[in-house]
Amino acid sequence: MVTKHQIKLIKSLSLKKNRQELGLFIVEGVKGISEFLNSDFQLEKLFTTKLIFEASSDQTIEVSETELKKISSLKNPNTALAIFKTPKPTLPENVGLIIALDAIRDPGNLGTIIRLCDWYGVKDLVCSTNTVDCYNSKVVQATMGSLTRVNVNYLDLESYLESTKVDVFGAFMNGENIYATNLPNEGVIILGNEANGISEIIASKVDRQITIPQFGENKSTESLNVANATAIILSEFSRRTITEK
Amino acid sequence: MVTKHQIKLIKSLSLKKNRQELGLFIVEGVKGISEFLNSDFQLEKLFTTKLIFEASSDQTIEVSETELKKISSLKNPNTALAIFKTPKPTLPENVGLIIALDAIRDPGNLGTIIRLCDWYGVKDLVCSTNTVDCYNSKVVQATMGSLTRVNVNYLDLESYLESTKVDVFGAFMNGENIYATNLPNEGVIILGNEANGISEIIASKVDRQITIPQFGENKSTESLNVANATAIILSEFSRRTITEK
Repeated sequence: MVTKHQIKLIKSLSLKKNRQELGLFIVEGVKGISEFLNSDFQLEKLFTTKLIFEASSDQTIEVSETELKKISSLKNPNTALAIFKTPKPTLPENVGLIIALDAIRDPGNLGTIIRLCDWYGVKDLVCSTNTVDCYNSKVVQATMGSLTRVNVNYLDLESYLESTKVDVFGAFMNGENIYATNLPNEGVIILGNEANGISEIIASKVDRQITIPQFGENKSTESLNVANATAIILSEFSRRTITEK
Repeated sequence: MVTKHQIKLIKSLSLKKNRQELGLFIVEGVKGISEFLNSDFQLEKLFTTKLIFEASSDQTIEVSETELKKISSLKNPNTALAIFKTPKPTLPENVGLIIALDAIRDPGNLGTIIRLCDWYGVKDLVCSTNTVDCYNSKVVQATMGSLTRVNVNYLDLESYLESTKVDVFGAFMNGENIYATNLPNEGVIILGNEANGISEIIASKVDRQITIPQFGENKSTESLNVANATAIILSEFSRRTITEK
């Protein structure tokens, strides 16, 4: 059974302020929860309609479908909801490729970018402090478990870029053609805000501006979606590690 | 002023059945409407709070903010809503690259894929009849105007693949490594359903199975989002037309 106090706690975790204060966040659904249970993340409490998880019994609370509906933020909740502890962020190792995000606002975009980092073996994702919180439930949902394998750091992006020793790349509309330029197998790659791109102050820290060129006759002025741009850029950097050996 | 009849018509166009029967669909927002007005699409009616569009006066109806809110499907409607006529689909020209979709269900994914086709100069997008309708307002919104430049065809995918003379590629989890294989500059590339991938019957029509390999140590089992996979595959096919001349 879920207590009133627990319902209140779970609802409160929809706000970033409360997640940060309490050091807790929510994961929903069997697949996601299983991935977090099998990772270094620490479980706080598990609410489930079926006792199918490998979690200690004093952390597990069996609930009815109706109770699960009451605590879930999903239209169709899937079997379980868990509260996990947010880990202490570890500083980026500055090895290999690092993705840096300047003010990404859409939870779906951040989630997809975390999933892409996982796919391409990028261990560190660096986010400006005004980027959407990775423990936002929509982000957690969109990462499909990849959040357990990518180290996400929120920090002062400007100072970070000043201190890094590797090359800093930025995705712009009028930079070097990414297909026709040399790319190293390490560096920081910055992607900017959905509407405004990379901010001026961050742009001033970029060593090399790169661009995904448009093909075809009708060159539209619209840019690519930031998650798709990340996909293409990570693909371009990564493939060279296997095709240009 | 908006009449009751017009409100009823606009609301009815949220259903595919009605869009098809009436041959009409909705575009919202200044930027999207401007792109459609500057294309071959034909305007039926324009409802706007500001007379800023180049449209004939007998097709334009000035409305109040309150009226616009009443007819819009957006939380924050942006200045205007227009009804356009759905064009007669023209058969794919079978030149260059063609993207084919097998049962894509998410409007955001289809919209993003149309935008990617536009970016990479893919003129024809072929969709199985059970793929989400491209005149669904969420798809139109997500294409950011690209729908005016990409010819979207709904047809029996199986027969189409049987009749095409170019190579048919399919995105699978265990095919040829896309980075380490030769890719032609023409062909049909199939992407499958978000949850189930390419269906068995369509898979049997594929000449070459291709795969985006995972990098890094932790190989998760999760696949990439279908729009990101499309981005990476289009990038790989397209870049070779400029780097492998």
